[in-house]
Amino acid sequence: MTTSHPSHSPLGLHRVLDPPGVLPQAAWRLDPSPAIAADEVRVRVDRLNLDAASYRQLRETYAGDPDKIRAAVGEIIATRGKMQNPVTGSGGMLTGTVEEAGPESPLGLRPGQRIATLVSLTLTPLAVTDALRRWDGQSEQVPCEGHAILFARSIAAVLPDDLPVPLSLAVMDVCGAPALTERVVRTGSAGAVVLVIGAAGKSGSLSAAAARRAGAAAVIGVVPTQAEAALLRESAGLVDEIVIADARDPVGLAGAVQAAGGPADMTVVCVDVPGCEGGAILSTAQGGTVIFFSMATSFSSAALTAEGLAADVTMLVGNGYVPGHAELALDLVRTTPALRALFERRVAGEAGKGVQP
Amino acid sequence: MTTSHPSHSPLGLHRVLDPPGVLPQAAWRLDPSPAIAADEVRVRVDRLNLDAASYRQLRETYAGDPDKIRAAVGEIIATRGKMQNPVTGSGGMLTGTVEEAGPESPLGLRPGQRIATLVSLTLTPLAVTDALRRWDGQSEQVPCEGHAILFARSIAAVLPDDLPVPLSLAVMDVCGAPALTERVVRTGSAGAVVLVIGAAGKSGSLSAAAARRAGAAAVIGVVPTQAEAALLRESAGLVDEIVIADARDPVGLAGAVQAAGGPADMTVVCVDVPGCEGGAILSTAQGGTVIFFSMATSFSSAALTAEGLAADVTMLVGNGYVPGHAELALDLVRTTPALRALFERRVAGEAGKGVQP
Repeated sequence: MTTSHPSHSPLGLHRVLDPPGVLPQAAWRLDPSPAIAADEVRVRVDRLNLDAASYRQLRETYAGDPDKIRAAVGEIIATRGKMQNPVTGSGGMLTGTVEEAGPESPLGLRPGQRIATLVSLTLTPLAVTDALRRWDGQSEQVPCEGHAILFARSIAAVLPDDLPVPLSLAVMDVCGAPALTERVVRTGSAGAVVLVIGAAGKSGSLSAAAARRAGAAAVIGVVPTQAEAALLRESAGLVDEIVIADARDPVGLAGAVQAAGGPADMTVVCVDVPGCEGGAILSTAQGGTVIFFSMATSFSSAALTAEGLAADVTMLVGNGYVPGHAELALDLVRTTPALRALFERRVAGEAGKGVQP
Repeated sequence: MTTSHPSHSPLGLHRVLDPPGVLPQAAWRLDPSPAIAADEVRVRVDRLNLDAASYRQLRETYAGDPDKIRAAVGEIIATRGKMQNPVTGSGGMLTGTVEEAGPESPLGLRPGQRIATLVSLTLTPLAVTDALRRWDGQSEQVPCEGHAILFARSIAAVLPDDLPVPLSLAVMDVCGAPALTERVVRTGSAGAVVLVIGAAGKSGSLSAAAARRAGAAAVIGVVPTQAEAALLRESAGLVDEIVIADARDPVGLAGAVQAAGGPADMTVVCVDVPGCEGGAILSTAQGGTVIFFSMATSFSSAALTAEGLAADVTMLVGNGYVPGHAELALDLVRTTPALRALFERRVAGEAGKGVQP
């Protein structure tokens, strides 16, 4: 079924139907034809994992009516050739099995491998063939039949055999943070003091473990509450010092970090709360680095605060893609029992809330 | 008059009156007392340069009435101990003469030096003594008498004798961009191809000159129009290639940059237009760096776009402060005739619009 598109692009530009000339994510409609170009991969889809904001919008719009929610998602996919909620603009990810890999695909996938996509559904050509009839409409987890297309510059990770799927997916969801943390610590000056804001969360705990493995001299973890501190304390060895502080209070946070062995040479912001820019910058030494992984980060606040504090810090936009990020994060979970225990508690807690199946 | 505050802070926390414990920028009211701590500097102010958004808000609120505008600014300064427009939240900068420098001030200033502050008025203690009576209320330029306080971690630059003041101020206003560009090119791999988006603007042209001086193998400048291209073409030697493209169109921009010798190893975004993240990322090679200097940058768009494109690029939040930034930028203007000519045209053009006095 490999039928090369006349002029295929590693970014999937040849799959864009409307409007022409934009990137797949910006497109209204993609071409999900099953025939793949030489550098594409076709995946037999078994489950969609809708973005939480997208699912919430659908549930509220249709007052929780499963038939209407199911029809709406089916209609979006049929119309757009991808699962991108037109209201929220967001997508999600999928799991499935590799069906066919083009000879020029650089993704290294083989037919039969069970994978998860690590690029958004908003740019992934998708067709569904079972009318979503196995989905109860009650959660973001959508069992389904159909196929999806991966481009040369897509990102997908093979689901490991030795870890439960929900655990692997939870790890992959945030694997960019530890990978970039590892790179910055490894290529920076030796013996860095690393500060992780939100250290008891998923991306935060992974980043703490990555920093330690990359050679950090000390890891300081910031949490907002005694309960989070207790959780982190049970994860022996993940951090050296625990600071309980409000990350939105720059003066208070910097003082507490100082008392715990700071300022930091490198600070990783992993809490999705607005207003943490000043605290992160002020807790970081001159010449240090701040990585913002929170989507609540304000670009202008970060830029203006650093200037206002005469802070000579390198500020990085947390990029969710670093080559090998999924493998690195999964390996951290495998080899760090405290991290795995913390993650399993987080995943179980979310399952209790109905987020995981 | 040097009377140490009981417990002074390099960030000026001891000057915060209300609410206590926040940074000066976040404070409602600062203490502008003229007595300085051992690490502070007192400046005799001769001119305020209000932030454009702040002045516009005042002019519109008071329907252009000079007396009311003057009274409003006077009232803000008297009430808050700083010039921070409560509606826009913005400030501006000031020029003046160093009156007294505390013995422990690290700023290297001496009494009698004419300086400009490079930190915002929003965090600078300020008192005005002439009721702004010399100000006509017709522009952002506010001649006045009074004093301001610089902290240990303030930033101020000595106005050079050999350049016109409006030119120096225009250069200092954007001096963070060339300084960070210079640092990234110098510490990166040799022979980089540098792309400057908005290369005919002030921060863009300075960044292009900085990249060349730091050892870039080639500098590609992106401009939106033929007119801007002509301006840049007259500035012989500032860039090697000129690309006319819409920076908001990722596919179009990346194609044009490719044709001009790209992709870039390093891209500097200097246009204050929303939606340039994708174009910058797509025009940059894997392993490259993007510096976002535009305040219109969306943090989440940058992060999500890079991930969606599987782009392994380092993305930096343009920090307006790099030690020595003003000196570096002024020196570039002094030693690069084409840059100086372009800047003088820009400054003259703004004077024609009433932005400069």
